[in-house]
Amino acid sequence: MQKLRVESFTISIDGFGSGPNQSLENPLGIGGTNLHQWFYPTEIFQKNVMGKNEGTTGIDNDFAKRGFNNIGAWILGRNMFAPSRGPWLDDNWKGWWGDNPPYHVPVFVLTNHARDPIKMEGGTVFNFVTEGIHTALEHAFDSAEGKDVRIGGGVNVIRQYLNEKLIDEMHLAVSPVLLGSGENLFANIDLISLGYKCTEHVTTENAAHIIIKK
Amino acid sequence: MQKLRVESFTISIDGFGSGPNQSLENPLGIGGTNLHQWFYPTEIFQKNVMGKNEGTTGIDNDFAKRGFNNIGAWILGRNMFAPSRGPWLDDNWKGWWGDNPPYHVPVFVLTNHARDPIKMEGGTVFNFVTEGIHTALEHAFDSAEGKDVRIGGGVNVIRQYLNEKLIDEMHLAVSPVLLGSGENLFANIDLISLGYKCTEHVTTENAAHIIIKK
Repeated sequence: MQKLRVESFTISIDGFGSGPNQSLENPLGIGGTNLHQWFYPTEIFQKNVMGKNEGTTGIDNDFAKRGFNNIGAWILGRNMFAPSRGPWLDDNWKGWWGDNPPYHVPVFVLTNHARDPIKMEGGTVFNFVTEGIHTALEHAFDSAEGKDVRIGGGVNVIRQYLNEKLIDEMHLAVSPVLLGSGENLFANIDLISLGYKCTEHVTTENAAHIIIKK
Repeated sequence: MQKLRVESFTISIDGFGSGPNQSLENPLGIGGTNLHQWFYPTEIFQKNVMGKNEGTTGIDNDFAKRGFNNIGAWILGRNMFAPSRGPWLDDNWKGWWGDNPPYHVPVFVLTNHARDPIKMEGGTVFNFVTEGIHTALEHAFDSAEGKDVRIGGGVNVIRQYLNEKLIDEMHLAVSPVLLGSGENLFANIDLISLGYKCTEHVTTENAAHIIIKK
């Protein structure tokens, strides 16, 4: 059965998935890049995202790698796709990732503002969904050709899907950094009551990895 | 200079310092004891709290151990001391720890309900402070004979002292468990704005340890 998965989603010790004040210069908000120090050095990131033949192997890489296994479509929040807010004033913006984004499958961007799909090099197509998380998930499952769907984030999107109990599996990495503000992944969400439990955990010197399942 | 320290305070992945529904049977709330699996096996816990000559050494024990160094007084929230709420109906209740509690110094219990001090074996004296966190801290510093003061918890007490920027140093252990509900240590607290930063972090297979300082 197709699953909805969150993979390699990183939060700070204080529960934030990105720093405050996202901008073109700070796609992950102020201090946000510190979150991902477990991820950047890994072979899978260096290869899939940076196009380099280098990187670390081991537990961090193993977790990062499983996040790319059997993924047929992605769902992203608008703020993961663009630093702008509101109506699309600049149609030249095609994401943070250049002409050949590291998705290579259909990507569904949740937004309140309609926009035509954008076909990128390498198989990525950005589709913009204005009808909410259920419709986005339906489209994503349909176009994933039997594979799973991965939610890229951000926190707000994950919280919406969690509250509807739609996420089947979630890999979180807790990084030893403080961000201070932003949206807390867990505030007012009771994962236990929603039926989730922690099924696996491994810590490395860079992060605490946990797997949460229904 | 005397410091106010939080030591070995353990939170779940979702930010909770104890489980819901504390009771006589569940002093740490439902699921709360799962939090402390990094701590119970350590030599310092086995020795200081259980009175046994056994236990693990290594990083977890090192962190647990430093929490007992140079401590001249403790501050506890009422709920750390007793399962009851409201006025003290049962004066026989003298804490969870038997006749000889593992403090061996003055302990200041924050409460809204006055009660006479209780002198225990081994040097522990439970004092009940109804005038709030500043008065408790003043008394604790005064009676610590130049040593530091340790806040035992719970979350509510730590949050009050954090918001007043009174905590100098905080060792948190993040345990790979979910508690689902309870009081989130970080919700609506911006540690960065309060002037705190993460100065040290080490992960073991049982917990992610971080040190937060002003």
